[in-house]
Amino acid sequence: MTPPTSLKQISRPVSDELDQLDVYMRGQMTTQTALLDTVVRYILRQRGKRARPTLVFLSAGLCGGITDRAYIGATMVELLHTATLVHDDIVDQSEERRGVASINAVWKNKVAVLVGDYLLSKGLLIAVHNNEFDFLKVTSEAVRRMSEGELLQIQKSRQKSIDEETYFRIISDKTASLISTCCEVGAISASASDEQRSALREYGELIGLAFQIRDDVLDYTSRSSILGKPVGNDIREQKITLPLIYACQAAPPADAKAMIKRVKGRKPGTKDVLDVMRFVERYRGVEESTQKARELHEKAVRLLAPFPESTYKSSLVDFANFVVTRTT
Amino acid sequence: MTPPTSLKQISRPVSDELDQLDVYMRGQMTTQTALLDTVVRYILRQRGKRARPTLVFLSAGLCGGITDRAYIGATMVELLHTATLVHDDIVDQSEERRGVASINAVWKNKVAVLVGDYLLSKGLLIAVHNNEFDFLKVTSEAVRRMSEGELLQIQKSRQKSIDEETYFRIISDKTASLISTCCEVGAISASASDEQRSALREYGELIGLAFQIRDDVLDYTSRSSILGKPVGNDIREQKITLPLIYACQAAPPADAKAMIKRVKGRKPGTKDVLDVMRFVERYRGVEESTQKARELHEKAVRLLAPFPESTYKSSLVDFANFVVTRTT
Repeated sequence: MTPPTSLKQISRPVSDELDQLDVYMRGQMTTQTALLDTVVRYILRQRGKRARPTLVFLSAGLCGGITDRAYIGATMVELLHTATLVHDDIVDQSEERRGVASINAVWKNKVAVLVGDYLLSKGLLIAVHNNEFDFLKVTSEAVRRMSEGELLQIQKSRQKSIDEETYFRIISDKTASLISTCCEVGAISASASDEQRSALREYGELIGLAFQIRDDVLDYTSRSSILGKPVGNDIREQKITLPLIYACQAAPPADAKAMIKRVKGRKPGTKDVLDVMRFVERYRGVEESTQKARELHEKAVRLLAPFPESTYKSSLVDFANFVVTRTT
Repeated sequence: MTPPTSLKQISRPVSDELDQLDVYMRGQMTTQTALLDTVVRYILRQRGKRARPTLVFLSAGLCGGITDRAYIGATMVELLHTATLVHDDIVDQSEERRGVASINAVWKNKVAVLVGDYLLSKGLLIAVHNNEFDFLKVTSEAVRRMSEGELLQIQKSRQKSIDEETYFRIISDKTASLISTCCEVGAISASASDEQRSALREYGELIGLAFQIRDDVLDYTSRSSILGKPVGNDIREQKITLPLIYACQAAPPADAKAMIKRVKGRKPGTKDVLDVMRFVERYRGVEESTQKARELHEKAVRLLAPFPESTYKSSLVDFANFVVTRTT
């Protein structure tokens, strides 16, 4: 595997398209309501890494060309993604997002709920106005899966434990579904064949899973200054993720049970967090999770093999590499 | 105008369809997530007056017949309406809805946000799966308008005053847009002509406006035991609605200004509420608002004139009457 690349490098073949997308999106987002304009401008100013539009454009390029339809698709997925971030901050009661105050922290929950709804409907309306029925099919399914995945996570968080299968169902719904949708939307926008479309959907699903596993691994390994949140945060929040699930599978059942109790019993303190981390280290939970992410990564890259060589293809390979090697 | 009828009487020509709709909706709403199932069952159990599906079916009947498409349309609007109710309860921090605890009160805001998103996407997916592109066009526009209308209301609530024009823009977006959509969806489901479709859309808009005006009037006139909330509640919540706007237009400007200050200054106490109510009574705010609602009602009923006589037509006339005469 090549050394980690940055998202900026990966998106280079579509950097012009990403710049044009900013202009296009700003044009789509003016409203007659000052409060809404203020909030939307606030959101657009802190645009993230634009990983999802990058995937739309790269997938479109891979399938033959970046047309106007790709801009519509990229706008849709970015708006839907932003809508879910705004709503997630209410769900998580987060005060910050991308280093600045979250919408719910500045404008309260009620504005955040409504702005999220507005962005959701706006994302769908862009497809409606452009008669992009296929985009609607894949994206509204992703919206359903994202909310259902989060609800399953909440439901499971109240239960004693969580198995590997449920973990994968949750991350597939809440994270991989939209990433998969980005790749499929890109393929649709380039009028790709059914085989190409399905290969890219599957590629997106696999790197989406690997992305979330890496995220959960970094919570065990990353220094707090890099990730912007304390290491062991998931344990503190009583979340059971793949490293702990794998460690429990490898450990003697009684030890595993005791460790789950430390996480799910009373709110874990610093000593609990350290003990759980030591347990996960001892039973190689991080290594096994990383191995799993790499398997998904390899499968994803293999799906790209039938496509002709191009800068788009190289970037999609780099994207998959990045997902499993990133340190932030 | 005929004496007030009940919604139950009005919906009689489509009561079989409403019963079948219940079965159809329950079939659509089973999921693999126990928490979601529990919440959805909780919501479906307290089904409301089903005013919106009634409008879909009556409009369809008026335009020639109630087909399978009408069920899809009725399910969509009912799910979208329910989604906005679930989200509104977060917006309003309501602890109750239809006499039982609200979702946010039982399961907290985060579940309410996600269940609302789920219902929204599910409402749209039903159209997607049935290739009902026209339904998607009108309903996603309504979703956008509902969130934008609520945001405009929040924005205006922070400002000193609100004029008649803004009041009508807010209630058109937040209330009338979905009611109008119900009638248009019914027309579409019956493959109505463009003229019929546009007449029903406009009928829905007008009765939607009249409905909200009546709601705001009842806040000034209704006994608390009937409406289930204390009279003068809007004043207490510092909301300026049509009766006060009209009273201010009729009163000497200095008196109007002083009264607005009583509402928008410090949180109004019981004495403030009583004084504002007396002011509105003196300057005939309730009468003028009622007169306005009746004008809208008459326009709405006139739009039905070109349609052939039928039980559906009579019920739509009754619906318009009901909207401006209801006491709860």
